[in-house]
Amino acid sequence: MHAPIVFVTDFGTADTYAAALAAACWRVDPGLTALAGMHEVPPGDVLAGAYHVKAIAQALPPGGVVCAVVDPGVGTDRAAIAVDAGGTLCVAPDNGLLTYLWTEAELRGRRCVALPVPLDASATFHGRDVFAPAAARLASGVSLDELGAPLGRPPVLCDAALAHHDGGVLRGVVCVVDRFGNAVTTVRESDLRGRAMASVSWEGGSTTQVVRTYAQIGDGLAALIGSTGHVEIAARGGEATAHGGPQRGAVVRVTPAGGASP
Amino acid sequence: MHAPIVFVTDFGTADTYAAALAAACWRVDPGLTALAGMHEVPPGDVLAGAYHVKAIAQALPPGGVVCAVVDPGVGTDRAAIAVDAGGTLCVAPDNGLLTYLWTEAELRGRRCVALPVPLDASATFHGRDVFAPAAARLASGVSLDELGAPLGRPPVLCDAALAHHDGGVLRGVVCVVDRFGNAVTTVRESDLRGRAMASVSWEGGSTTQVVRTYAQIGDGLAALIGSTGHVEIAARGGEATAHGGPQRGAVVRVTPAGGASP
Amino acid sequence: MHAPIVFVTDFGTADTYAAALAAACWRVDPGLTALAGMHEVPPGDVLAGAYHVKAIAQALPPGGVVCAVVDPGVGTDRAAIAVDAGGTLCVAPDNGLLTYLWTEAELRGRRCVALPVPLDASATFHGRDVFAPAAARLASGVSLDELGAPLGRPPVLCDAALAHHDGGVLRGVVCVVDRFGNAVTTVRESDLRGRAMASVSWEGGSTTQVVRTYAQIGDGLAALIGSTGHVEIAARGGEATAHGGPQRGAVVRVTPAGGASP
Repeated sequence: MHAPIVFVTDFGTADTYAAALAAACWRVDPGLTALAGMHEVPPGDVLAGAYHVKAIAQALPPGGVVCAVVDPGVGTDRAAIAVDAGGTLCVAPDNGLLTYLWTEAELRGRRCVALPVPLDASATFHGRDVFAPAAARLASGVSLDELGAPLGRPPVLCDAALAHHDGGVLRGVVCVVDRFGNAVTTVRESDLRGRAMASVSWEGGSTTQVVRTYAQIGDGLAALIGSTGHVEIAARGGEATAHGGPQRGAVVRVTPAGGASP
Repeated sequence: MHAPIVFVTDFGTADTYAAALAAACWRVDPGLTALAGMHEVPPGDVLAGAYHVKAIAQALPPGGVVCAVVDPGVGTDRAAIAVDAGGTLCVAPDNGLLTYLWTEAELRGRRCVALPVPLDASATFHGRDVFAPAAARLASGVSLDELGAPLGRPPVLCDAALAHHDGGVLRGVVCVVDRFGNAVTTVRESDLRGRAMASVSWEGGSTTQVVRTYAQIGDGLAALIGSTGHVEIAARGGEATAHGGPQRGAVVRVTPAGGASP
Repeated sequence: MHAPIVFVTDFGTADTYAAALAAACWRVDPGLTALAGMHEVPPGDVLAGAYHVKAIAQALPPGGVVCAVVDPGVGTDRAAIAVDAGGTLCVAPDNGLLTYLWTEAELRGRRCVALPVPLDASATFHGRDVFAPAAARLASGVSLDELGAPLGRPPVLCDAALAHHDGGVLRGVVCVVDRFGNAVTTVRESDLRGRAMASVSWEGGSTTQVVRTYAQIGDGLAALIGSTGHVEIAARGGEATAHGGPQRGAVVRVTPAGGASP
């Protein structure tokens, strides 16, 4: 049985770049048919990509493979890597895309190898020529060690992806605005260390309405923990960003219940 | 052999929600690889969703599964259901999404069960935690009866999805405007009971040009029966809605040939 | 083992037309699960479609099937065809969509048959009723000869897809602007016959910066050979078309190194 592969890229769906990743997998092994993809990471947005890599990794069964390609540095000397993060496998350029995947697997075991770039790889499309073939080999049962040598250091992390403690308040940013206009932040339930949220604020707005489901939202904006464990700002009926909520990239501050304290 | 699954959702393709449905199926059974999806139902638009559920169900082979998630009521007490509608299986929130599927299967046999919501389901993402796993079990050969107990009443129907007889004229609405600008209505060939169309009118326009194919359209707007059996308003070269045709939600009146009469 | 199928269409992803192609394949053979698609060819744009058909055919393994449907003439007497182009199989309306696939396979062997249209095919959706079933049969191992009789002439070619020699300069057009704003032209590396590029010009602009990778681009616009072998105009960080580069449809002139000469 082959493992499933999910692509997370900024290739969009209006070119054949995304379909070429599937085709490249079939060149390795035509039995790789458990394929899915999300190809609309904003172009070059490593922070949003890191969030989406984590979100889909959470949904995959153990042994599933994420092929992540948001790669503004293609053609430079940035490394290409493959990791085992607590049982989820992932290949990606080494630019911060795996920040959540790597850091959240700390207690479950993790390894990272460097992927060699084939001599006949095109200079502009490592998704097709490096990452998809590596993902295909992993999904076909090839081990991480057969793909490359240990990287010898942790993957590059994206500092903006991690919330910061700031006088007992958690400071993060909006990393993704989803289709329903929910503003997803880099602040995670785990950052709250077991405490509830008391309020969330951003430049020009704030809310003390903390709910568990979208359907519970009353008037105005509310904060909740979304299905990936990140703090979101949402509005009744959607479109928080159109009703005074924070925009993509905005700084947010989350105050835990019981007041600001470590 | 597994049955195919097609997702019909309003999740869009710019988040990982859609890919997470495939991943959730692979958690149930990694052999479920006949998967496809349409994820751009307008957010919360149950009427358009009902049309798209019917359209894809028509195309699927017998035993195929539709996993339909347009679910503004997630987190409320709306039921989650699974139906067998004349041999097509479908899971969905019970909010009218299955109106066409259910009513058009009247003569072919139909059943409906209520799906239990697992205790560990997230409060905001029943697509991943309730509907996709249920669709996966159906596609893997689990019977409807093993999924849940009979609902004991028909599913909720969406009244706006059904054309109404109004003095011998058929009154409906534009439920979908497709990529080519064709305005698809809720009036069906079957509503015409064997008669041809004489004309279609809407606020601000009308046409008596009735054709069989897009290529037959002369000047102006025309009416035809589209590939799903619904009346459409179309223009030569596309974009009827940009050339005076009715917009999404507009009321349309279809007069059968031979004049208004039952 | 089934061969993979990739769809290239202008159906968009906001309707069920694309998913219906997969469903139509499963009606032929539910084991056809190696499916991918690119459905955002601009509506009716045969030139862009021809480029995308070539791009994905390059990525597929031998024996792979492309199901191409950009079909403004559906319902007219345009032929429906299936070809073997150097080992890649493809079904399409006979309107120029296979221009690159056909002409570039000249030395590798190629054949073309006419597909019959089933009597019960809908008048408006040959993708579902003609092309997808034919692609499915090819991918299941049915031979080209079993699908139809030889066409007896080459497929229709799209003249605009082929670069023209114009006093030693190569004249083409921008056939596709990709998601990153790169302007892809109809001029191919093979048209340069082993020579490098010296410059590319278009109405209102030109560049003599010729690079191998996007990361090598300095100030302003640059020309490079993209991953499909076509000349592209690109900008550092993307969005060449927003920085004075040529738009879709613009005429471009490529001067080979060593000056204009055959």
